Amino acid sequence: MQLDTDRFLQDLDALRTIGTYRTGVHRPTFSPQDMESRHWLARRMEEAGLDATIDGIGNVFGRHRGRGPHLLAGSHIETQNHAGWLDGALGVIGALALARAGLPVDVCAYADEEGHWGDFLGSRSLVGDLTEADLDAARNRTTGAPLRPALAEAGLAGRPRLALEEGRHKGALEMHIEQGTQLETGGLRIGVVTGIVGIRQWRIVIEGQQDHTGGTTMRERRDAGLAAVRLLAAIDAEFPKVCAERSVWTTGRILLEPNLPMIIPGRAELVFSFRDLSVEVMDRMEACLHALVRESNRRERCPARLEAIGRSEPAPCDPAIQAALRGAAEALCPGAWQEMPSGAIHDSQVLARKLPVGMLFVPSIGGISHHWSEDTKREDLELGMRVLAEGARRFLQA
Amino acid sequence: MQLDTDRFLQDLDALRTIGTYRTGVHRPTFSPQDMESRHWLARRMEEAGLDATIDGIGNVFGRHRGRGPHLLAGSHIETQNHAGWLDGALGVIGALALARAGLPVDVCAYADEEGHWGDFLGSRSLVGDLTEADLDAARNRTTGAPLRPALAEAGLAGRPRLALEEGRHKGALEMHIEQGTQLETGGLRIGVVTGIVGIRQWRIVIEGQQDHTGGTTMRERRDAGLAAVRLLAAIDAEFPKVCAERSVWTTGRILLEPNLPMIIPGRAELVFSFRDLSVEVMDRMEACLHALVRESNRRERCPARLEAIGRSEPAPCDPAIQAALRGAAEALCPGAWQEMPSGAIHDSQVLARKLPVGMLFVPSIGGISHHWSEDTKREDLELGMRVLAEGARRFLQA
Repeated sequence: MQLDTDRFLQDLDALRTIGTYRTGVHRPTFSPQDMESRHWLARRMEEAGLDATIDGIGNVFGRHRGRGPHLLAGSHIETQNHAGWLDGALGVIGALALARAGLPVDVCAYADEEGHWGDFLGSRSLVGDLTEADLDAARNRTTGAPLRPALAEAGLAGRPRLALEEGRHKGALEMHIEQGTQLETGGLRIGVVTGIVGIRQWRIVIEGQQDHTGGTTMRERRDAGLAAVRLLAAIDAEFPKVCAERSVWTTGRILLEPNLPMIIPGRAELVFSFRDLSVEVMDRMEACLHALVRESNRRERCPARLEAIGRSEPAPCDPAIQAALRGAAEALCPGAWQEMPSGAIHDSQVLARKLPVGMLFVPSIGGISHHWSEDTKREDLELGMRVLAEGARRFLQA
Repeated sequence: MQLDTDRFLQDLDALRTIGTYRTGVHRPTFSPQDMESRHWLARRMEEAGLDATIDGIGNVFGRHRGRGPHLLAGSHIETQNHAGWLDGALGVIGALALARAGLPVDVCAYADEEGHWGDFLGSRSLVGDLTEADLDAARNRTTGAPLRPALAEAGLAGRPRLALEEGRHKGALEMHIEQGTQLETGGLRIGVVTGIVGIRQWRIVIEGQQDHTGGTTMRERRDAGLAAVRLLAAIDAEFPKVCAERSVWTTGRILLEPNLPMIIPGRAELVFSFRDLSVEVMDRMEACLHALVRESNRRERCPARLEAIGRSEPAPCDPAIQAALRGAAEALCPGAWQEMPSGAIHDSQVLARKLPVGMLFVPSIGGISHHWSEDTKREDLELGMRVLAEGARRFLQA
């Protein structure tokens, strides 16, 4: 294995010049800048001795020409709007560096992990979970524009979509920035990911009666905002009893109607979600949520309704890949790494439907993500690359 | 006393034709429709034998020509935008009917109770609590336009402003729609107002740390939304221990930032208010609120800040006027009336700084107010008029 970390950093810097926005980049999926970066990547793959293809959904796939067992490695190359230079790019260029180092690695940039047009279109297509009807129906999340014409404009219409070759890959690896502050806060440099959390997301709608605050006694009121506060306070009190150590839950959105100082809210709409690595724990949290809504409906004169609006399954990382990455981390930065779940979603959770997966985190400065100021120290990028390569080597040999 | 309730209803219907909007009216203060209604009212006052003046702030004052003791009676004639035909108008036309009935009553339409340009400009001007500097500073609440040019355009520039004549009035009376459902719900037809509640209004700002829901553990979080929920739940638990029977408290507005489903709220801004008839009770509620915010700041990692943004003092109604109105109600609709505080604000609370005041409520259908569909049954209007007149007569004789 001949790892060239200077070249790895040069490639990252070169990719950063495509769609530059301040110190970050702006490459929404299938935009001219995004397509430029995909073609640039395909040329880098060929240069590294891989057979490069851009498929019908925009996946950029570099196939290793030699014998296996093979690893699949990669991440995504498009970005959120006006976002960071490393989110996605790090895992793609890291995978390219593995191939350049002579490891038997197929490199892939999975299209549209960032969800401009749907949910994990590229990785779902690769694992066979994306139909032509899904493509017909897909729309841009911001503009509502249909996907098909955008694919045609990007030069992708009519291209076949690639599928994972059964039995080819021993596993899949993805390096990514942490998008949090746990490593930084702990003074650590590497996170070995134990799994990607599942998410269950809910809309909670509470119907009350809009009234003037002056003319309506407390007894007469049906205050939807107050019923919402009581339900959220009950969740705050009860969830700690059913959750696991790393469970999280969040009320990100509260909308009162009419949300005017002197009017009793007639309606409240909340968006609530929770995450955990374990389906069993999430089932307990969901049962608790349902029980608390039922209790609210017994207690309050404002009926509450629970609607599931999002669900993704947790994806545990492969024990053998984790062991290889732990060994590599302990060899290269002893005591300066930890095991941790990924709270954010990644293509690896889709790949996990077909392959053993593993992920490696490097620190994010200040935890900033999905913003152009996102960054990671160069020595952390370099160390991450070395741990990834050593972990890949160990796993392939195991 | 020669009360003509038919004429009273005719006057109400006539006024309703000025600025008609659906079944309601649209007469914002100093608009052409509003000024048309003020001139119409001045002609009706002259017709009723009063000396009518429109003063420099738009008060329409009809002075009784005979000997006292005099009552002052009235309400406001402008409306909220696209609002009801009775809110304000009822008290003005009711006062006019008292004068027509031969009672020694000065009639006044106090300008801008609805607050298009400020707080109680007309009644404050009458009691001497409005300076020329206040007028210079006043702006339209919706458009931001300055008041002075609007007064000029309405033909009011340069007119003197009237002041209450010391010792002239034995008291002030105001009839108004309830703007609530207590009378309707109780099957009652008259409310004798015990006082107008005071209001204290607060902005509560809670500062946290915006973060991604996935990457931030519960321990690391500084969730401003959750801190807000806990504070509001504490208010919900503690206020019943310090409040009085008719106290009310409301969180009308909750603004989270950025209020996105998958982002931990970094900031929460609440508007909270409470009302009661008693300063002592409001002082207890305020002390409790301060204590709960201090406790929140000990408990939470998101500092909460309390800003007073509004305060009006409670105005108890005069015992002798209340007694006269109770006697009239019991004589004219025995068992179908109740004593009640006014939760909404009215000019009477300003007049109470100088005069004994009393108020009478008639039912609002469905409690609707500040909306063009506001209405009251004609038999309730007529009964209200009769109780008001009989109450006025009794109080003048007492």
